[in-house]
Order: sequence, then C-alpha cells, then structure tokens
Amino acid sequence: MSPPRACFRLTLEYDGREFRGWQRQPGGCRTVQGTLEAAVEAVAGQVVRVEGASRTDAGVHAEGQVAALRLATRLDAAGLARALNAVLPGDVAVVDAAPAPDDFDPRRQARGKLYRYALWNGPARSPLRAARSLRVEGPLDLSAMRAGAALLRGTHDFGSFQATRSGARTRVRTLDRLDVVVAAPGEVALLVGGDAFLRHMVRILAGTLLEVGRGRRAPGSLVAVLAARSRAAAGPTAPPHALTLVRVEY
Amino acid sequence: MSPPRACFRLTLEYDGREFRGWQRQPGGCRTVQGTLEAAVEAVAGQVVRVEGASRTDAGVHAEGQVAALRLATRLDAAGLARALNAVLPGDVAVVDAAPAPDDFDPRRQARGKLYRYALWNGPARSPLRAARSLRVEGPLDLSAMRAGAALLRGTHDFGSFQATRSGARTRVRTLDRLDVVVAAPGEVALLVGGDAFLRHMVRILAGTLLEVGRGRRAPGSLVAVLAARSRAAAGPTAPPHALTLVRVEY
Repeated sequence: MSPPRACFRLTLEYDGREFRGWQRQPGGCRTVQGTLEAAVEAVAGQVVRVEGASRTDAGVHAEGQVAALRLATRLDAAGLARALNAVLPGDVAVVDAAPAPDDFDPRRQARGKLYRYALWNGPARSPLRAARSLRVEGPLDLSAMRAGAALLRGTHDFGSFQATRSGARTRVRTLDRLDVVVAAPGEVALLVGGDAFLRHMVRILAGTLLEVGRGRRAPGSLVAVLAARSRAAAGPTAPPHALTLVRVEY
Repeated sequence: MSPPRACFRLTLEYDGREFRGWQRQPGGCRTVQGTLEAAVEAVAGQVVRVEGASRTDAGVHAEGQVAALRLATRLDAAGLARALNAVLPGDVAVVDAAPAPDDFDPRRQARGKLYRYALWNGPARSPLRAARSLRVEGPLDLSAMRAGAALLRGTHDFGSFQATRSGARTRVRTLDRLDVVVAAPGEVALLVGGDAFLRHMVRILAGTLLEVGRGRRAPGSLVAVLAARSRAAAGPTAPPHALTLVRVEY
C-alpha cells in the first residue's frame, strides 16, 4: 500500500546568481522551483509541483524562502530535508522542513515578507562584497533616505513602484517596514517588510531611495511619486544581485 | 624629465577563489601578485615587482593584504589606487594606498598578521555561506576548542603546524591570538593572530582545533602535538576557501 500524501513546508536558502529566478520557465532554463521539483522526483520518484511564497527574480538570493509540496512518502520532514539536500546542487538547500496542513499555501497565507537590499558605500570597490551588494560611489545621505522611507511606509497604492505590464489586480500594499540601517562602516542595508509585494517593487523602492540618498531627488518628492501611480514617476529598478529574501512570516 | 621613483603601500582586498594564491608562478597561472604587476604595467608602462606581506595560498581571501611597489610616477597614492582599480579585475581591488618609506618591506616589517578561519555549524548546509566557510556537521565543543587554543597561544616551536618540506630556518613563532568566537548562531570563527606564520600554519591550526571540537582529540593532547615538532602529530590542513587574511599590522 502506498503511503498517503502528506504536505510539507520547506524553508530554503539559495544563492541566486546561477538561477533564472524562482519560477519554472518554459525552455528549460535553470530556476529554483524547477531544480527543487527535479530533486523531489529524484528522491521520491514523483512529479510534484513545489509552490513558493515569493517569486524571486533572476539573481535574487534567499535566506528563508518558504515552499510547499505534497508527496506520498514514508519520510518525515527531517528525513525529506536530508534526502533533498543530498541531491540538490550546492547553491540551494533546505534549511528547515516541517509538516504542514493539507491546505497550506505559502504565498496566499503569508502574513508578511522581509527583504534586504544591500549597498556598499565604502571608499573603494569591495571584491568580497561585490557578489551580494550594490556599490554606491560618493556620499550617501542616509538622513534623506530615512525621511523618504518614512513617506513610503504604510498602506498606499504602489502603482509607481511596479514593473510596467505586471498584472496585479490591485496595487494597494502595506509596507510595515522600510528601514535604512548601517551594519558596519560603508555597509548600508534597506530592510523592506510588508504584507505582499508587486513585481520589482523592492528593487524600484531601492532604486528610488538611492536617488534620494545621492541628492538627485528630494525626500518630499516621494509623496508625488506615490500619487502619480505611474512607473515613470519612480527611480530605476535596482539590480537583483544585492537583494535577498530574508524570511516569510505566517 | 621622468619623475623620481616613489614607494607606495597598498592595502588589497581579494576574493581568492579564482587565484592560484598570492605568489607569481611560472607557467602563467593567475595569481594576485601577477595580476597586480600586470595592472601596474598597464597603468604606468613599467614592469615592477609588487611584494606582499603574506603569501596567501590558492583559494585564500584577503580583506587587508599589504603590498609595496616602487614606481616612477607623477600620480599620488590616491590617484594610483584609482588608476589600478580601473584596470584590475573584479575580484581584486586596492582599498587603500599611502606613500611609504623607500625601504618599506611589507613582509619583514610586519609586526603582526590577523587571519580568520570561518566555520559553519548550522543545522543544514548554507549555500550563501559555502563559498567562504567550512561546513562542520554535528556538535562542535567550543569549550574544548578554547581550552586547546589556550595551550597553543604564546611562543613555541610550531614545527608540527607546518607544511612538510617548507624551508623555514626557525619554526619558533609567537601566536598572540587564537580565539574561538561565535558571530551568529552556527557561525563560528577562529581568529588567529601572530608575528609571522609558517607555511599552512593557520590551516593546520584550524584542522587540529576542529578535531578537538569534534571530540576526536583531547584539548590537553595539544601539548604533546607541539612537543613532537612533527607534521604527523597535528591534524589535517583545513581547506583554503574558509580562510581570510584580515589585516597586517606595522
């Protein structure tokens, strides 16, 4: 008798550099979702769909992506994690696994997500930081960035901070957290937390606040950027390699 | 009239993964020294030798390697750093530059060097830490490691902690610092500071203390390891990718 199907919640860490993002794509390019599904097939001999909480873009990293899968297996959660880690490539790993209710939906049920966008504002470029932070040359006005961030926190229509042609029905989101923190001299991070995010929203927030920090945009101008509800009103989309999904909360 | 030769002290950061170590080698493999000398030639049109404070092994990183070069140039130190950074590849950079006395010898004049050996002792492998730390599975007894480290600190003949067939005249060195620190849960580092180091000494210290931490060797046994003055008495040479030269002191 085959074992009943059980639902698992997996917490995943990955280095996004060699992935074309989370979401499986036609044409066989390497994605985190596709890599995980192949690992499940190798371990359990079953073709199942693995759903993730966040559809991270190509190049974006994760310390705590959350995914769900349903599987007919006699393995418990810890055994499944060990088996998957044995076949997964070095740049992705299951760092935690737990049984989940059968209706567990990691995306819809997420209460919040926290992202970190890392900047390097030291006096010279930093080879050891280059893979995971964006170098910013010249002075960075953190007070101005914090003043701008304060205007963006809260519940707003974030239509200006959304990739053009993304299909979200409503663009109203709640940004609980948008903090500019200094971890070490030159190491500046934006911590961005909210209930849900529009496509490219974190990267456009980072690109816009960076313009504020460089004095190219006044903090107060962000009120008009929000009101415009137009992608053209905000700053550029900051590059993906400096962005990390820190955790998902339920 | 060509400008007089001036001496510069450069502080270098590099990601060691794609280098065959610091020291220029016959056969044209990629080394930090060779890469820097090629950059100086590109910038100044002069073939000069760049001397480093530490001959880091293949795969070892540096946050603060120190190097010296003599150059006939009208550039000041900051201008030279900018010019070199413009031609150096992404995995090495000059993070500081200063004028130096003409007899500056970065290796002989170094008063001390500090290295960090990074361990990852979390519950699962960590893709984001894998490039620069050594994963240790199972429990790690930090108290035992600290007790063992205390026996190694000070001035000793470190002949047991030296690569076989290295040609040092004396193996007596002073280890000022050998600390086992926990930066975050699971993130353990060995901080190793001393006046000078034998070949592979930091990596053999790390490999030996790791055996103590895993319960395969008693802390007190390190007294006999020192006394043996034989490479065979110590533990394995820990891999290079988890080692970083933090700074050189003068």
